[in-house]
Amino acid sequence: MTLQERPLGDPGSSPYRILREGDLRDYLARLPEVAARLGGAPNAWSITEVGDGNLNLVFIVKGSRGGIAVKQALPYVRLVGESWPLPLSRAHYEHLALTHQARLAPGLVPTVVHHDEALALTAMELLEPHIIMRKGLIAGTIYPRFVEDITTFIARTLFFTSDLAVSAAEKKEGIAAFAGNHALCKITEDLIFTDPYRQAEQNRWTSPWLDHIAASFREDFDAHVAISRLKLRFMASPESLIHGDLHTGSIMVTETETRVIDPEFAFYGPMGFDIGAVLANLIMAYFASAGHERVAGERQGVESWLLETVERVWSETARKFLDLWRSEARGDGYPKALFAGAAGETRLQVERRHYMERLFADTVGFGAAKIIRRILGLAHNIDFEWIEDGRLRALCEARSLRLARTMLVDTASFATIRDVTKRARELRDWQPDFSAT
Amino acid sequence: MTLQERPLGDPGSSPYRILREGDLRDYLARLPEVAARLGGAPNAWSITEVGDGNLNLVFIVKGSRGGIAVKQALPYVRLVGESWPLPLSRAHYEHLALTHQARLAPGLVPTVVHHDEALALTAMELLEPHIIMRKGLIAGTIYPRFVEDITTFIARTLFFTSDLAVSAAEKKEGIAAFAGNHALCKITEDLIFTDPYRQAEQNRWTSPWLDHIAASFREDFDAHVAISRLKLRFMASPESLIHGDLHTGSIMVTETETRVIDPEFAFYGPMGFDIGAVLANLIMAYFASAGHERVAGERQGVESWLLETVERVWSETARKFLDLWRSEARGDGYPKALFAGAAGETRLQVERRHYMERLFADTVGFGAAKIIRRILGLAHNIDFEWIEDGRLRALCEARSLRLARTMLVDTASFATIRDVTKRARELRDWQPDFSAT
Repeated sequence: MTLQERPLGDPGSSPYRILREGDLRDYLARLPEVAARLGGAPNAWSITEVGDGNLNLVFIVKGSRGGIAVKQALPYVRLVGESWPLPLSRAHYEHLALTHQARLAPGLVPTVVHHDEALALTAMELLEPHIIMRKGLIAGTIYPRFVEDITTFIARTLFFTSDLAVSAAEKKEGIAAFAGNHALCKITEDLIFTDPYRQAEQNRWTSPWLDHIAASFREDFDAHVAISRLKLRFMASPESLIHGDLHTGSIMVTETETRVIDPEFAFYGPMGFDIGAVLANLIMAYFASAGHERVAGERQGVESWLLETVERVWSETARKFLDLWRSEARGDGYPKALFAGAAGETRLQVERRHYMERLFADTVGFGAAKIIRRILGLAHNIDFEWIEDGRLRALCEARSLRLARTMLVDTASFATIRDVTKRARELRDWQPDFSAT
Repeated sequence: MTLQERPLGDPGSSPYRILREGDLRDYLARLPEVAARLGGAPNAWSITEVGDGNLNLVFIVKGSRGGIAVKQALPYVRLVGESWPLPLSRAHYEHLALTHQARLAPGLVPTVVHHDEALALTAMELLEPHIIMRKGLIAGTIYPRFVEDITTFIARTLFFTSDLAVSAAEKKEGIAAFAGNHALCKITEDLIFTDPYRQAEQNRWTSPWLDHIAASFREDFDAHVAISRLKLRFMASPESLIHGDLHTGSIMVTETETRVIDPEFAFYGPMGFDIGAVLANLIMAYFASAGHERVAGERQGVESWLLETVERVWSETARKFLDLWRSEARGDGYPKALFAGAAGETRLQVERRHYMERLFADTVGFGAAKIIRRILGLAHNIDFEWIEDGRLRALCEARSLRLARTMLVDTASFATIRDVTKRARELRDWQPDFSAT
């Protein structure tokens, strides 16, 4: 049995079919736990399809007592259509990741109410009044709880699935359990680590202003070497169970709560990919901010908060990760017996700092890759897309690309996270030369 | 079903039992292909148990026409006994690795005649008149064919299972297929990457002469950091399907043929572990040589050949690996589209050199680890063990440890393989101070 042939349902469960509103109502009515949570007669439940992501169907179902969100995987990429098939097994991996994340970072992912492998369907608590963080950031909202929550999520999910926390045997079982999710990894490998740097039909960018910059990335061999090294790390560095798509569209927030959703890209990969994703999306929100101003300077508050948040996401993640390493290191990595006594602890503490420096460099590199793909590749962010004026949008994007290119190619020049935010601040009002376009 | 519960046989196959000579005769007589290869009446077959390795039973079976070698895994470590259980599934992984190696490096592994998952048994062609290379080296024999064959084996098995040659999906399937072999990996993790650097009951060394040196390794935090980094790479860098135990006791030779045997430690790990293993065992053969002299200088020929072989094993492996990378790169790593044209090829060629430099550093580090474990850990080499005079043996071992410690801690000081052989040559007659013992 290869991993692709993994049975997706119990022998007795219903075969896969794409659910319409009516099917879903009948299906949910037969699940006592779900029906009880919703309350009232199934006929009275409201069902609305709201999926605005790239891949799946998402229904909001509400009854007299409460609501749920139901996510069903489609056998193709929703954004593109049936011409781009994508295995339903991603719902299996998403559910598996959610289960691990709920255990490792309690309260920071949605509670699963029901999962059906054959239907590639998961019903979860309805997150209300949470909104997609990206939309809140575009609106200029500040989230005081965010740093505390996201750094707890990142530090705990990464640490507790790493060789610092688990045995090598458990780690290998985890890697194998997610190895079958390679079709989702392939999307990342292509859309993030390859296509933006070559002629690819699916690429797009804000034309004509960015034509020259897009072309320069396609001819930039230093960038090609750097992105290829990162791609190799993405493919062959199973450091931890990573979320795999941890942008601000995968985070739902209120001012007092944070929930990480949509881990269907989860697999064992490099830690820096998740951390870099968060930082990259905050940086893009920062550079997009100028495009959402009605009056110059009116968003200074949120812009300062964004850069401060970039700094704190890294520093708090690092602090929490190191705290866990000191108190919860039960894995096979860095055996305690080799660092016994006060002298051993002192030496290990130095090594922990080196470890975090390597992780920071990874984070900076992966963060750069995440910025570049959102501006030159297939899938764009509404942070930029909602800036209607093309020239203004291109301006914000060009500033992001300028920072990202340095992060990608000259990663070592960023010794600390403050070097990143300092450079971002310097580029806030940088005027690229669009005259050639 | 977890990987440990992987069914080891067809439902109808016989259950596991440890085979004695008589059982084996009956068993083989029922296999037409085997019986035909052996020839004559089963009663007339000679069967001899010859296993001198650490883990398994090995029988040589000869009939009137030909012979086979039969290897059966025991449910425990043979070297230690039933107190150290070890899963039979290793025979499954060994057979799987042999199958891949036979395809990738034809003629360089023994042909499999029969495999029985339930019995954890594999019958292979009898390698005659091949001998274990380690024994030949101790006897002072030179193997003119060795470099050509072993570098073909290494370069091809490592390259063709890497991200440079296969898709990310295929790679992940390979990683998953070997993930269940973690009990064998654990032996390496403990015996190579941990125990020699701490108080461990199983450790032994040539006492009293090496007592001080053994103690210094237990207190050497620079060595502990270096070995811990290597351990982490061993656990979380699935670069290629590696043999996992590629010492000169796993290589059978004549002056014109080479066969790599015993890949039961195979899994997806760092390439440098295999290359380092070969180099380390050649280096130990070199330092042991002085202990096998009857007349000073009589083994200069084989000693020169050993160091020349160290150099050529690295340089030919690198050359062949790079040749394959230029001609057979069909994997997802370093996409061709990003290095198009003459300028792209030029830039990629620079990057390939950087890649090989990183691989060389890994090789030097892992090689050091392999030397140290053979002198301070549980499992020793007959290269040294057959030197009867304890003080002389300790002298040879101390020279090896001195080189290995530098390779481990100051890896970067070895820029090329000639830096390794130069240092080895300098240490050939080094006299350690044993006066404190």
